[in-house]
Amino acid sequence: MLHPSNPSRERLDSLRANFPGDGVDAVLVPRYDAHLGEYCAPHDERLRFLTGFTGSAGMCLILADRAVMFVDGRYQVQVRQQVDLDQFEIAHLIEQPVARWLVESGATGLRVGVNPMLIPGELHAELSRVLTGGGGALVALDADSVDRIWPDQPPPPLAPISAMPAERSGETSADKRRRIGARLHDLQADLLVEAQPDNIAWLLNVRGVDVDTTTAPHSFALVDGDGGVEWFVDERKLPNDRDSLELDGVTLRSPGALVERITARASNRAVVVDPQHAPAALALAVEIGGGRVVREMSPITLMKASKNAVELQGFRDCHIEDGVALSNFMAWLQATVPARAASGNPVTELEAEEKVLAFRQASSQFLQPSFRAISASDANAAMCHYVSTPQTNAPITASSVYLLDSGGHYLGGTTDVTRTMCLAPPDAQFRSAYTAVLKGLLATLMLRFPAGTFGHQIDAFARKPLWDLGLDFDHGTGHGVGHVGAIHEAPHRITRVANPFEMSPGKVLTVEPGCYVEGQFGIRIENQVEVVDVANGFLQLRSLTLCPILLEMAELSELTAAERAFLDEYHARVRAELMPRVLPETRDWLASATAPIAV
Amino acid sequence: MLHPSNPSRERLDSLRANFPGDGVDAVLVPRYDAHLGEYCAPHDERLRFLTGFTGSAGMCLILADRAVMFVDGRYQVQVRQQVDLDQFEIAHLIEQPVARWLVESGATGLRVGVNPMLIPGELHAELSRVLTGGGGALVALDADSVDRIWPDQPPPPLAPISAMPAERSGETSADKRRRIGARLHDLQADLLVEAQPDNIAWLLNVRGVDVDTTTAPHSFALVDGDGGVEWFVDERKLPNDRDSLELDGVTLRSPGALVERITARASNRAVVVDPQHAPAALALAVEIGGGRVVREMSPITLMKASKNAVELQGFRDCHIEDGVALSNFMAWLQATVPARAASGNPVTELEAEEKVLAFRQASSQFLQPSFRAISASDANAAMCHYVSTPQTNAPITASSVYLLDSGGHYLGGTTDVTRTMCLAPPDAQFRSAYTAVLKGLLATLMLRFPAGTFGHQIDAFARKPLWDLGLDFDHGTGHGVGHVGAIHEAPHRITRVANPFEMSPGKVLTVEPGCYVEGQFGIRIENQVEVVDVANGFLQLRSLTLCPILLEMAELSELTAAERAFLDEYHARVRAELMPRVLPETRDWLASATAPIAV
Repeated sequence: MLHPSNPSRERLDSLRANFPGDGVDAVLVPRYDAHLGEYCAPHDERLRFLTGFTGSAGMCLILADRAVMFVDGRYQVQVRQQVDLDQFEIAHLIEQPVARWLVESGATGLRVGVNPMLIPGELHAELSRVLTGGGGALVALDADSVDRIWPDQPPPPLAPISAMPAERSGETSADKRRRIGARLHDLQADLLVEAQPDNIAWLLNVRGVDVDTTTAPHSFALVDGDGGVEWFVDERKLPNDRDSLELDGVTLRSPGALVERITARASNRAVVVDPQHAPAALALAVEIGGGRVVREMSPITLMKASKNAVELQGFRDCHIEDGVALSNFMAWLQATVPARAASGNPVTELEAEEKVLAFRQASSQFLQPSFRAISASDANAAMCHYVSTPQTNAPITASSVYLLDSGGHYLGGTTDVTRTMCLAPPDAQFRSAYTAVLKGLLATLMLRFPAGTFGHQIDAFARKPLWDLGLDFDHGTGHGVGHVGAIHEAPHRITRVANPFEMSPGKVLTVEPGCYVEGQFGIRIENQVEVVDVANGFLQLRSLTLCPILLEMAELSELTAAERAFLDEYHARVRAELMPRVLPETRDWLASATAPIAV
Repeated sequence: MLHPSNPSRERLDSLRANFPGDGVDAVLVPRYDAHLGEYCAPHDERLRFLTGFTGSAGMCLILADRAVMFVDGRYQVQVRQQVDLDQFEIAHLIEQPVARWLVESGATGLRVGVNPMLIPGELHAELSRVLTGGGGALVALDADSVDRIWPDQPPPPLAPISAMPAERSGETSADKRRRIGARLHDLQADLLVEAQPDNIAWLLNVRGVDVDTTTAPHSFALVDGDGGVEWFVDERKLPNDRDSLELDGVTLRSPGALVERITARASNRAVVVDPQHAPAALALAVEIGGGRVVREMSPITLMKASKNAVELQGFRDCHIEDGVALSNFMAWLQATVPARAASGNPVTELEAEEKVLAFRQASSQFLQPSFRAISASDANAAMCHYVSTPQTNAPITASSVYLLDSGGHYLGGTTDVTRTMCLAPPDAQFRSAYTAVLKGLLATLMLRFPAGTFGHQIDAFARKPLWDLGLDFDHGTGHGVGHVGAIHEAPHRITRVANPFEMSPGKVLTVEPGCYVEGQFGIRIENQVEVVDVANGFLQLRSLTLCPILLEMAELSELTAAERAFLDEYHARVRAELMPRVLPETRDWLASATAPIAV
């Protein structure tokens, strides 16, 4: 289908008009900002501006006579709906990434322009190798090729920065910086170039909402072995009262001075630059300055993943607030849906999303949603990455299956929880799948595993009950969660792909098995967990989430005695924590939802 | 303890005397031959000659005034018993590998000599980087530093090479070479440098026993995109009747011509060299010749791992032979141990090892042991890597726990199986541990998992019953097995560490959970398996091993109905295949060992 209103043809023409002046045959436009994360500010939605594609990952290679969109499996359908297929070919970002595409195209002497601030060092090196091998080159452009043709580009975000004081973060910035400095010594390195906002927010005990649902202000940092920091941040974002921030030993710099400062300080120094999470320009700056690049994951990433006692208590406390809001929501939904559906004015996905937000906002601790909620009714829930829009906003009827994956940032922590509700008695297929998802969750939560176990060893316990039915789910079992931080925090994950980071107490993750039948329904049950010591070096995933796990859709006879006892114990804990705090009209629902299982 | 008879002091002095002439300050002597495998011929036991250390992995860095032995966790005790601690310091090969040791030593300007034929390209590159970074260099020596001071060095092996005809390998060498040539095209490569004997043996359909218990003749190969091969092999090893070999399209060369031929052919070509399994000298030769090194795992490694129908039938058939031999052995052991123990002349570990070999040799299909058997009584079995020697040769008494991990190469395949026997009723601790090991084996064999699952996802199913008791085992759950090939065949493994190779039908692996209590006992139950399709893209590990799984030490009440049914079905299969073939005196034992479980 043509998109007559899609202006991509003119934008491509404008972009291509600059090729001769820049001395290139093509440019690569990725869906990255200079921090290479999952979420972009409107200022950085260059790929969307150029192509119309709104997904969270992808890139476009624009040549003189063709343009190729590279997106992963999640977006193969969406991209074809969003881009003008007269202008763009579609490739698979994973199966045929750009480097491979370039090799297979057989092009020689190709000069491809990139903005080296918008591409990870590792990808830059790979593309450079491939192009040079073919007699061409990867060309660093002085000005971003899209910015030059985007007259009404929104300005960079300037959200106010606030303190995350040690009472809530559990450690002063000075102590954190000392630990990172010591770690640099261990790595035989002198300097760390840090481009990840959540790592800097953790290090400096600050927060700020430059991008919706995130908590880390855009900035960069240079950290030395003594824990001294040059912080490259737009000073307009800082509060008037800077004494609230922990800025001893921190030198403020303009973000524009970053490359120059790296170059000035790198000479004869070993400089850690994360090859996947720092833009290529920063490693290049080290080399230009005469330094040696140490290509290692930022040491902050691993240190931040181990939550301290204050952070963990904050997580536990905010999950009580969150469980109250979710219980109030689920009781409201169950009470409201049938009458509203009967009245011809059914509750919708977007209304439900607003309602759960309102329940969360009733907490004095609540800050903002921790991600755009997945509020999905019936067939919409079969799309794992669905978000409701006015165009797709489906009703939740008395016979609906409704999936809600949502969470909040609170003063003391971050939540991420999914529940699937069935407003009427489910059929046998659904009941069987729901029971398997439930058993997968329980197997993972009940597992005791030795310290040092990897997430990839645990992943399949959440899948086995589905495997027994010939089913599976096509996403990870769980991901790390930041402390008032990134909703998908590196590096720990529970996935089928390798994750070489050992489990130890204090890690915070999700466990979220699911089952999706296209065109029919989606099921996911997700608890957030902390890794805790149980005995003799063995660990367990203890639920932070305190919210009833709905059992009316489960085949209880398929649960083992141990599973039933585990659920009863969990629900007793949920009831004890939430009952005194929920709305009066929620109490009956909560009592019923947390009642011991009748054998 | 000093080792007065250990001649390492003189040997170190001789070695060091050559430093000035070679222009080096140190040399590195690894326990590798030019094929970088697990097993070395006596000719290549340079590290043992120099230091006295007999382990299967390790290396020694000899400086002017000190010498450092690097060995992994398995060998930390053994190395201290074997080397002269006045001459050698000990370091941990994994926790403080040579490159790290060099950095931490703070030495600058150090010139370290190596034989680039005896060190993997990856390690060579890392050491070179570290030494150059410190103002020194890694120096390629013209002659091996140990060979020069080893007057009575045994000659290289010259075992006869024989054909593995397509009737038994399932595919002609020409067809295999065509497939590898096509794979080189896919990799955009022109040539493959192959240094792994088992890969070449598979490719050329040949076998030969240059090293005890192995089946692949020492040789090298250059393979091109048309499937043409230059085979670098000592022609003295070839049979007089060369027509039995598939040598069409194969040019014979002397092994000594390898580097020169690589250099001659590499110009302007992309050449695949396995960075972990080809010596550094070969990638260097590509570069010297003006070629581009493609650092990839050899494409033969993955292709060889998928066994064809003929190979799989060979595996199945030889496991019947093997099960007969093992059943005869176990029946003999059970009948013999009490009387021999009572007579004061107990059966010993070495005698049992000889006996099981004799039972295997009774098969007309048997070639040789596939590895040195682990025949271990009581506390000796607690050492996973134990092999019995005249010094350690323990008796097997009427109250012993006895572990036998053994296998054979047969004309049609290779076996690897472990059984643990208890000659008297076990105590509660042993019974509980044995039951957990059994349940771990069953969980893994009963698991149905989707195609594409990784071994690291399966690993923990074999451990969970042990984890439930606060126990674990400190080795992998399983490894690949070659077809009349390497007993530890790459690349598929079932391990806690990442193994990014997807499971698919035709892979052959072991499953071998265990439990070891130091000073007391060791338990391991191992079945060899093939990956088979069950339904709708789901796979299962089907036992190749046909040998009773002993149940008298298990707590049968802890088995689920499904586990009992699985065992009954397995034992019915074992009984049907073996009963007609075992010795008459074995039949009663086999009937009892394979009887259905009484509920």
